[in-house]
Amino acid sequence: MEKWTQGWLAYRPVKEAGNAQLAGSMKLTGFDREHPIVQNAVSEFCRGIKGMLGISTVLACSGEPGKGVSVERRQEIPAEGYHIQETGGVVNLYASDEAGILYGIFHILRLIAMEEALAGIDAACRPDNPLRMYDHWDNLDGSIERGYSGNSFFFQDNKILVNERTRDYCRLAASVGINGVVINNVNVKEAATWLITERYLGQLGKMAELFAGYGIRLFLSLNFAAPIELGGPDSADPFDGKVTDWWRQKIAQVYEAVPELGGFLVKADSEGRPGPFTYGRTQADGANMLADLVRPYGGIILWRCFVYNCTQDWRDTKTDRARAAYDNFIGTDGDYRDNVILQIKNGPMDFQIREPVSPLFGALQKTNQMLEVQIAQEYTGHQIDVCYLVPMFKEALDFNTCAGCPSRNTCTGDAACCDKRSTVADVVSGRTMHNRNAGLCAVCNTGSDENWTGNDLAGANFYGFGRLAYDTGLTAAEIAEEWIRLALSNDREVVDTVRRILLTSRETYEKYTSPLGIGWMVTPMLHYGPSVDGYEYSRWGTYHRADWQGIGVDRTKQGTGYAQQYANPNASLYDCAETCPEELLLFFHHLPYQYRLRSGKTIIQHIYDSHFEGVEEVEEMIACWKKLAGKVEERTFENVSERFARQLENAREWRDQVNTCFYRKCGIPDEKGRQIY
Amino acid sequence: MEKWTQGWLAYRPVKEAGNAQLAGSMKLTGFDREHPIVQNAVSEFCRGIKGMLGISTVLACSGEPGKGVSVERRQEIPAEGYHIQETGGVVNLYASDEAGILYGIFHILRLIAMEEALAGIDAACRPDNPLRMYDHWDNLDGSIERGYSGNSFFFQDNKILVNERTRDYCRLAASVGINGVVINNVNVKEAATWLITERYLGQLGKMAELFAGYGIRLFLSLNFAAPIELGGPDSADPFDGKVTDWWRQKIAQVYEAVPELGGFLVKADSEGRPGPFTYGRTQADGANMLADLVRPYGGIILWRCFVYNCTQDWRDTKTDRARAAYDNFIGTDGDYRDNVILQIKNGPMDFQIREPVSPLFGALQKTNQMLEVQIAQEYTGHQIDVCYLVPMFKEALDFNTCAGCPSRNTCTGDAACCDKRSTVADVVSGRTMHNRNAGLCAVCNTGSDENWTGNDLAGANFYGFGRLAYDTGLTAAEIAEEWIRLALSNDREVVDTVRRILLTSRETYEKYTSPLGIGWMVTPMLHYGPSVDGYEYSRWGTYHRADWQGIGVDRTKQGTGYAQQYANPNASLYDCAETCPEELLLFFHHLPYQYRLRSGKTIIQHIYDSHFEGVEEVEEMIACWKKLAGKVEERTFENVSERFARQLENAREWRDQVNTCFYRKCGIPDEKGRQIY
Repeated sequence: MEKWTQGWLAYRPVKEAGNAQLAGSMKLTGFDREHPIVQNAVSEFCRGIKGMLGISTVLACSGEPGKGVSVERRQEIPAEGYHIQETGGVVNLYASDEAGILYGIFHILRLIAMEEALAGIDAACRPDNPLRMYDHWDNLDGSIERGYSGNSFFFQDNKILVNERTRDYCRLAASVGINGVVINNVNVKEAATWLITERYLGQLGKMAELFAGYGIRLFLSLNFAAPIELGGPDSADPFDGKVTDWWRQKIAQVYEAVPELGGFLVKADSEGRPGPFTYGRTQADGANMLADLVRPYGGIILWRCFVYNCTQDWRDTKTDRARAAYDNFIGTDGDYRDNVILQIKNGPMDFQIREPVSPLFGALQKTNQMLEVQIAQEYTGHQIDVCYLVPMFKEALDFNTCAGCPSRNTCTGDAACCDKRSTVADVVSGRTMHNRNAGLCAVCNTGSDENWTGNDLAGANFYGFGRLAYDTGLTAAEIAEEWIRLALSNDREVVDTVRRILLTSRETYEKYTSPLGIGWMVTPMLHYGPSVDGYEYSRWGTYHRADWQGIGVDRTKQGTGYAQQYANPNASLYDCAETCPEELLLFFHHLPYQYRLRSGKTIIQHIYDSHFEGVEEVEEMIACWKKLAGKVEERTFENVSERFARQLENAREWRDQVNTCFYRKCGIPDEKGRQIY
Repeated sequence: MEKWTQGWLAYRPVKEAGNAQLAGSMKLTGFDREHPIVQNAVSEFCRGIKGMLGISTVLACSGEPGKGVSVERRQEIPAEGYHIQETGGVVNLYASDEAGILYGIFHILRLIAMEEALAGIDAACRPDNPLRMYDHWDNLDGSIERGYSGNSFFFQDNKILVNERTRDYCRLAASVGINGVVINNVNVKEAATWLITERYLGQLGKMAELFAGYGIRLFLSLNFAAPIELGGPDSADPFDGKVTDWWRQKIAQVYEAVPELGGFLVKADSEGRPGPFTYGRTQADGANMLADLVRPYGGIILWRCFVYNCTQDWRDTKTDRARAAYDNFIGTDGDYRDNVILQIKNGPMDFQIREPVSPLFGALQKTNQMLEVQIAQEYTGHQIDVCYLVPMFKEALDFNTCAGCPSRNTCTGDAACCDKRSTVADVVSGRTMHNRNAGLCAVCNTGSDENWTGNDLAGANFYGFGRLAYDTGLTAAEIAEEWIRLALSNDREVVDTVRRILLTSRETYEKYTSPLGIGWMVTPMLHYGPSVDGYEYSRWGTYHRADWQGIGVDRTKQGTGYAQQYANPNASLYDCAETCPEELLLFFHHLPYQYRLRSGKTIIQHIYDSHFEGVEEVEEMIACWKKLAGKVEERTFENVSERFARQLENAREWRDQVNTCFYRKCGIPDEKGRQIY
């Protein structure tokens, strides 16, 4: 097996660090060896130990004494949690369920791969978020919407694939604690509508079974208009008895063939997709209809909040796409069944390099919520440009919504005042509302490319999202370091260099692309490369409103009022240019180019400076990367080098187009007299 | 047969105007009744007379006296010409060849359709241009590059279609004097490369035979790299003996199956297409290699001059796409075989609504030249917007290149000085160089739509180009009137209204789109609808260079030097902003928004005014058209009304985006205070 295709589970030989003896045997107590998850955990352990330490693990009989790994059921361990504790040469792994065992085994393998000694370990882990999901935007023809790593490995030519790569995918996902996967694109069209018919149910059953062996529930994206398109009643009205009857039968049929199915993800009333609005029903009406029908099977409904007017008139400065999710959903708070989860994008627009956190988080006080992020780099470099996104996800999770805080109007922002379990992390973990149906999901960045993610370094996002979803307390640096050591090398120079590259990459990307939170300015449709006015006169609601005097969208009380969708103190903070976080300044305010930032720089000079800096930073990254020749696998070195070359070209194009375009708009020269065209 | 699908050959009942008796019989002298062209001519005559006058034509025996049409061979009539002369109740039609007969018959039918009396007619006609061609950009899969009238009727699913529609197409083409047709896209890719293989030769032969029956020679677009792609030698070097041997055999094979083939059209070294430059050879080397091989079969090679750098850097202000055709070809003047024709687009860029005439015309003094225009409305409204293009073609033909004129440096532009047979019309008709391989071609605007051209009114371009190519002396208004009376109605109100719409339509389109010759500003790739900066930072060499101060491309001596590619006095006329024709001002000059035009208006005010006017003119057109309800066929009325509604929306979008974008750039308000966003 080619190591390069194994991501962070390559299991390359490592220094044994005293681990060889401890990993030489394994004993199971209280778990059924025939349970698929246990089988997979044991087999993964043997494979990892063999690869890394060169030894074959002895599967010891229950009750036998001596050194080694001892797996034991302990009912008091939380679901999907585990406790690893070394005592007297025995590495005890306790868990209450099979998934806990699997995660614990991956934890042990991770430590070995990182050349950490198992001796003395005492680690109790439990997932911070109940649901930890990858959402794939794979189409049945094998294409991937916003995929930058080749084709789908779930679908090809309208057929479902279940093969060794599916298993490898499950191993990677499970190794970072993923427990749910949506395999098909939220835009359910053409053959995808047929996924819930006999044509596909057999293969889906096989896939779901394979997934289940790794603690992963399979989910499907659903076409809300399926009754119509599949020849049922000529309606999708959730209040129409014929429609619900159709769905009841359909869901029964699906669950009979795929009993492990986790449920359905629905993008309704969005970007041309059908939904309950068509029939004058609320989003809750639509979601609840399905939720009631999947409940008997333990299913849940993930309902996306990405509902907005995508045929806006650019002349209309009152309508604000940023407001849409909140405006469309806030009125239904509390109307949803407990097996519905609203899936909310991190920001109010669409996965830009910098956005404020969606004001729906926290504002919804009686509704299950899930944070949706995107590791597919749609707007963040297409896995050509390196852009490590875990810091962005951390920011979103750390954001204090201040919702439900009695002192929020006088909030000083200090810990005493703000520790009300009202961060996004609190909300989506279930801590705020004590709910189980909550969590995180990421639009996934994988494909049929041998290295899974196009750019090898994009593996850090694939890895990092899962780790963060399981253990939100990890820092972005810690996750980066883990991934580097697992996927690339334990060599100190490699670790330090790549970690530095990863940790600065998001700011670098931001610097050479759109400034101060304004977003967009990308090539229409493609979403790679600059086009300053590319979306300015479009129907998508994504404008910067730049003219010869200034730039930005007024989302204050005087403008679209979007800032007021937040609880205080955030609302007032955003509403005032002086207090607004500067990285979001132009998201909230229309300001003259000569407006001075806290640094003393004008906005226009900031634009020039940051764009020159961004390119310089890419050049520095490349120089650093070049020094790693011979220290990482050659294919990785070549892959990343080739991507960096394209990133540099992209960064230069952004720099020159953005600087030139703004210079041509305002006529204010760069103070430093650098080349602008 | 549905009249609507017959274009201007609908042969609706008309007032007989004394023609019934004259058209009641036909007699042939000196022509073989079995000749396919003669057969088709006679059959067309009978069909037309039956449809229009309701009578069946008697085919009289040779020598029989009496009233009627008498067709007779007269060797002194020029090729493809004819003489129609009524004397004593006999309408004599003289011609020296069968094509002349066919054209003469169509002439007679046209007069009858227009309710003109044949009595007293005495019309001697001959084609002004030897070659009069439609070029189709049809792909073998049935799509049409830049087609706005449905799919191809020549190809479907990689098969060649020869059916009744093919015949109808030939009838339409022949009725306006077309004598050559290129059936496939100049971008010869995929299956099209196989057109010259056994797979297609049988069907091509049938099609060529059908075409020949209407005096039309079939041409094919050729892939210069065919030897490589069809498994011949791994080269397309015209100096490589193996390559020429391959071509010799290939061409022999093609002509054996398709003896009527006119020759080949080649787009080489252009927009990614292969060509002689790849092998360090000149364009002449490439063209001559093929010309020598088709010569034995009477074939000719049409060689496109659309060669330019399509991966330009927008930062580069020295490279000028407008210069490219001249720069690439002028050095080869006189190097071409006499059966090669250089096919030159009317303007130096690419079929914009306003361009100067290509400076290659006239500058090439020893090379066959052909004018290429586009009736497919790629940049002129996609056959949604009405845009009658004959006036534009007239302008190009009337342009005096002043080449070869000894007094051109002191030219005053008056007739005495300028009548040196150096207009574009002189060059492409063969009058300047006394050559036969010359003429006009148009990228055609037809497709599988029932009405052939998407918008019924676009039929005027389909008709008009052919008429103009045959008889360049016709005015745009005369051609418009003919088409209206043939295709729509002889009703005076219809004729006057539609003629006015057609004759103003190009200026109207120009007003609401890109101003003063600057061009582009269209949605990238699509080429419909505005995007002011859409191509500004692209690789296509199509820039307007607008900033906060001014707009335009400096193509003077101080700039790219393009203006100097013209002979004087044009060169100096264009080089100076004060003498440059204002409709081309920004094509040649970069000027401040406050620059005053001869009208006293500033450029920016002209932009605002013309854009508001353009929309108002569309509204007026629509009001005029509405009055024709009931006076034209209902399907035509509905078709044009629906297109007008879309045109109006398009025009408003152009107006608002262009005005807003320039206002946002310069901050200069509209003097009239109208709505700009």
